[in-house]
Amino acid sequence: MEKLSKQFEFLKEIEKLKTVIRRTFILDESRCENDAEHSWQVAVMALIFSEYADTQQLDMLKVLKILLFHDAVEVYAGDTYLYDAVAAETQSQREIEAAGKLFGLLPDSQQREFRELWEEYEEGKTAEAKYARAIDRFQPFWHNYMTRGKAWQKHGVHASQVRKMMEKIEAGSGFLFSHAESLLADAVKKGYLPE
Amino acid sequence: MEKLSKQFEFLKEIEKLKTVIRRTFILDESRCENDAEHSWQVAVMALIFSEYADTQQLDMLKVLKILLFHDAVEVYAGDTYLYDAVAAETQSQREIEAAGKLFGLLPDSQQREFRELWEEYEEGKTAEAKYARAIDRFQPFWHNYMTRGKAWQKHGVHASQVRKMMEKIEAGSGFLFSHAESLLADAVKKGYLPE
Repeated sequence: MEKLSKQFEFLKEIEKLKTVIRRTFILDESRCENDAEHSWQVAVMALIFSEYADTQQLDMLKVLKILLFHDAVEVYAGDTYLYDAVAAETQSQREIEAAGKLFGLLPDSQQREFRELWEEYEEGKTAEAKYARAIDRFQPFWHNYMTRGKAWQKHGVHASQVRKMMEKIEAGSGFLFSHAESLLADAVKKGYLPE
Repeated sequence: MEKLSKQFEFLKEIEKLKTVIRRTFILDESRCENDAEHSWQVAVMALIFSEYADTQQLDMLKVLKILLFHDAVEVYAGDTYLYDAVAAETQSQREIEAAGKLFGLLPDSQQREFRELWEEYEEGKTAEAKYARAIDRFQPFWHNYMTRGKAWQKHGVHASQVRKMMEKIEAGSGFLFSHAESLLADAVKKGYLPE
């Protein structure tokens, strides 16, 4: 029963991702999405786009585990906007501390598994982590394109910043990267964001 | 490229789950949750509680695929409240039509895979479907307990109705069912809902 209580403590904390708000608008543009919705959507996209991963024969169960928990530490560390250079400076330290606190709630064996998956994602070296990171970058980019640059304009983002961010798409899926490149060119042409 | 456009059409439609509102309150009680958040949370709970599934050696990738898409048809069919007997009468037909329309957007091979997973879930015969259904029932039950019966009271739900609903927890996880039974007894004792 002690094990079960620990699992419920963890589940209570991680449920708060429903209240961590990101900068990305949902497609009907009525509001910004939260981390829980985002985590669901990247898991769905990873499944639908699996054939476009650079590495075939990915361990898709691992990819899904990584994506379902990839933003979990934001329960304590908050969401850091991709284009916020100041917050980015302290992001890593804040997130490492949050990971210790959050995953530390779990029973020992699960603590180790989920903490290691989070670290694997952060390091971005394995094929699964690379693909997960590519999808995590592609999703908000796609939303920005589909909402005619709503969040880009709100935060004064330039195409060169988006191009830099897209490196992680390239590292996991050449196919999605080349699609993103043409969407970005189109976005600049249509005036969604400045070059 | 035709394949990719089909996948994007499907992803655009399924993203609307962020706007399908359920009767379950999030744990801070500020609002009800939506289908996208719910789908993320049941996937997370399925992973954390996997040791409590009646069948060991479950195909967890299949469980996650099922749960990530189990409410997808509600994009067209809407959410049917567990305790709404009138809506339940037309639910099955509405959802079958919605499944045809939604999964029909995908390229052929994916269409078949995800439609079959949805049907497997609806039929509830395989070990993976049974466990997924148990988690899908346990999650709102747990939220109702944690919010001191907020949604039960709002909709005039009695313990006997909850007990009936809990049969699907029992069919997939005897362990979680017996935990739910003691939480329900406690909820009645504390006056969260009438016997």
